[in-house]
Amino acid sequence: MRTPAFLDHNATTPLDASVRAVMLPWLGERFGNPSSHHEYGRAARAAIETAREQVAQGVGAHPTEVIFVSGGSEANNLFIKGAALTRRPGIIGVGATEHPCVREPARQLRGQGWRVHEIAVDAAGLVRQDDYQTLLAQRPALVSVMLANNETGVIQDVAALATQARAADAGFHTDAVQAFGKIAIDFRGLNAAGVHALTLSAHKIGGPLGAGALVADKRIEFLPLVAGGGQERGLRSGTENIAAIVGFGQAAWLRAQALASRAAQQQCLRDRLEAGLGEMGFEVFGHHAPRLPNTSYFAVPGIDGDALVGRLDRAGFAVASGSACSSAGGAPSATLLAMGVAPEIARSAVRVSVGDANTADEIDEFLGAFCRALTELRQLNRAVV
Amino acid sequence: MRTPAFLDHNATTPLDASVRAVMLPWLGERFGNPSSHHEYGRAARAAIETAREQVAQGVGAHPTEVIFVSGGSEANNLFIKGAALTRRPGIIGVGATEHPCVREPARQLRGQGWRVHEIAVDAAGLVRQDDYQTLLAQRPALVSVMLANNETGVIQDVAALATQARAADAGFHTDAVQAFGKIAIDFRGLNAAGVHALTLSAHKIGGPLGAGALVADKRIEFLPLVAGGGQERGLRSGTENIAAIVGFGQAAWLRAQALASRAAQQQCLRDRLEAGLGEMGFEVFGHHAPRLPNTSYFAVPGIDGDALVGRLDRAGFAVASGSACSSAGGAPSATLLAMGVAPEIARSAVRVSVGDANTADEIDEFLGAFCRALTELRQLNRAVV
Repeated sequence: MRTPAFLDHNATTPLDASVRAVMLPWLGERFGNPSSHHEYGRAARAAIETAREQVAQGVGAHPTEVIFVSGGSEANNLFIKGAALTRRPGIIGVGATEHPCVREPARQLRGQGWRVHEIAVDAAGLVRQDDYQTLLAQRPALVSVMLANNETGVIQDVAALATQARAADAGFHTDAVQAFGKIAIDFRGLNAAGVHALTLSAHKIGGPLGAGALVADKRIEFLPLVAGGGQERGLRSGTENIAAIVGFGQAAWLRAQALASRAAQQQCLRDRLEAGLGEMGFEVFGHHAPRLPNTSYFAVPGIDGDALVGRLDRAGFAVASGSACSSAGGAPSATLLAMGVAPEIARSAVRVSVGDANTADEIDEFLGAFCRALTELRQLNRAVV
Repeated sequence: MRTPAFLDHNATTPLDASVRAVMLPWLGERFGNPSSHHEYGRAARAAIETAREQVAQGVGAHPTEVIFVSGGSEANNLFIKGAALTRRPGIIGVGATEHPCVREPARQLRGQGWRVHEIAVDAAGLVRQDDYQTLLAQRPALVSVMLANNETGVIQDVAALATQARAADAGFHTDAVQAFGKIAIDFRGLNAAGVHALTLSAHKIGGPLGAGALVADKRIEFLPLVAGGGQERGLRSGTENIAAIVGFGQAAWLRAQALASRAAQQQCLRDRLEAGLGEMGFEVFGHHAPRLPNTSYFAVPGIDGDALVGRLDRAGFAVASGSACSSAGGAPSATLLAMGVAPEIARSAVRVSVGDANTADEIDEFLGAFCRALTELRQLNRAVV
């Protein structure tokens, strides 16, 4: 049997060959604790600092603004919980379509006296100005709105939202995990607009699992989530995962080299897919809004999304029925519900997210398999009724 | 120049070749998000569950008691902060010689109204019964005492301490990072005695950086440090670091196979080293107490430990001047100070920790280099005076 076509790059990505190449020495003859005062330790330290420069360069930040952590979920928790600990309990505003690793730490703050305002979004998933103004009028201490949504790919105007938040004296964070490596990110510019921190992840950009970063303005105060030996300027303790960090640096560098051409190539595949879906009468969520070049998220009314994904899997196509994390529970996508999509429609959602290695042939084959799977499932549904 | 002899295995360990071998496919052709509902996702999930069984077996636990995290520091923070969040602020007792990643999260709890009792230790670093009784009389909510100390290798009677803590209704945690893979650990037995949770790390046992675990009795309540997608039974969110977890499983399995023979071999090298040190008139910290088979920690009065470590490094021997994490600041070892060692003696401490690949020749060569370095530094000192 042939390897299934991987069309689920918003969940994770295959490790780039050159990333693997820079990681391998650190999983072999090279090793050492970067805090150690000997040759092994110094070499490990130097490798980490090179990676820090690469990641910083990839998002237009200064290396000293990059705090390496174990991944995007940790970075989001670090900022939200860590910044809350330095402040009197108040209001935290988070987008209604945020990833669970933003919404959940915010909800955990309720136990410490915080109030959570989930910012309403419109039908495309964009923050609604009326509700955002209502939030800001209450002087929230912290606001977190993602740069691009993991399910729909819809891009928020984070700079504009941050500027408004700054006028209300709020600390502003953005989860840039899905945007990173797909569209250009300029932390210097975002920071000038009022963004204090942003979250990155390595495994969404052809890098390894186990590495992510919080890129943070040094003037914004927050406490470490993992406290201890004082690594990462005291903001993330624990022996650094050298191989993963080195791979993260390489992946960030690589993406920065060819961002525009990769994006154009992926958008071409996505447009081909969406043209096919359009001919079948399907409409893509958020298609009128600015979107990532690689993501198509659409509903197949009357069909269970999980059943469809399972059938496509058996046909050799790996796609998602929602965000990988939240779909495990079987509940309809919180993102779609927040966008005003009816639960029965949300349950039928399918996400296709293309990557560097996908081809036009794969898209055409996928459209064929999708069509067949749909016909079969509709026949089954009729048989049941 | 030859590769320096690595005698710093308590800081980190080289990756075992067979661990590397099981990791490589997950850094190449195999990839996937374990939460995804397709073939890539299912294969990743299966690999993680195999590793969970291996780690559980390595410490006599049930696989469902193993919560994978990014490392030992995170596991210690997870238990201490997570358990505190489910309780009314009270007293937490932590050993005075705990690793910073236990002492620091405990100190952070002060901000939420907790009181921290650092349990006094005797000259060997063992918990003093008088102070422990004082702590327990105050009904602490939580107690954390490490199984074996990272600097001295001294082993606490954690089962006895936990039994006493249970009589006082305290939640009991032990940091088993340094003990794991060096002495046998039986979570079932420790749990029966009153230990609710213990911390493990992969990179101290020939496994990779980026993986650790909290092994926890399911009846003990704690909240996640990294909240979000709900991975690890909701106790550690974020896409699992598959390669690192798979490597952790293999390393745990490997260590369990040959624990006694490896320990005997390392103890043989350590005894050879300590015989040589004894002839030079040096006394090893905690030498009368039960100790790990691989660790020698000793003071060289009148000599700066960092200067000595630097000179040994240039001579081709990697050793530590204290725990790698805490030595970065240049402050004398908190562990030695807690044991009643004078600061000027503590500043002269050197730690040698052997591993599987070390040889008797390396120990002999180290003793020669140590002797020469000492003579040179003493001459320098005299020249300065």
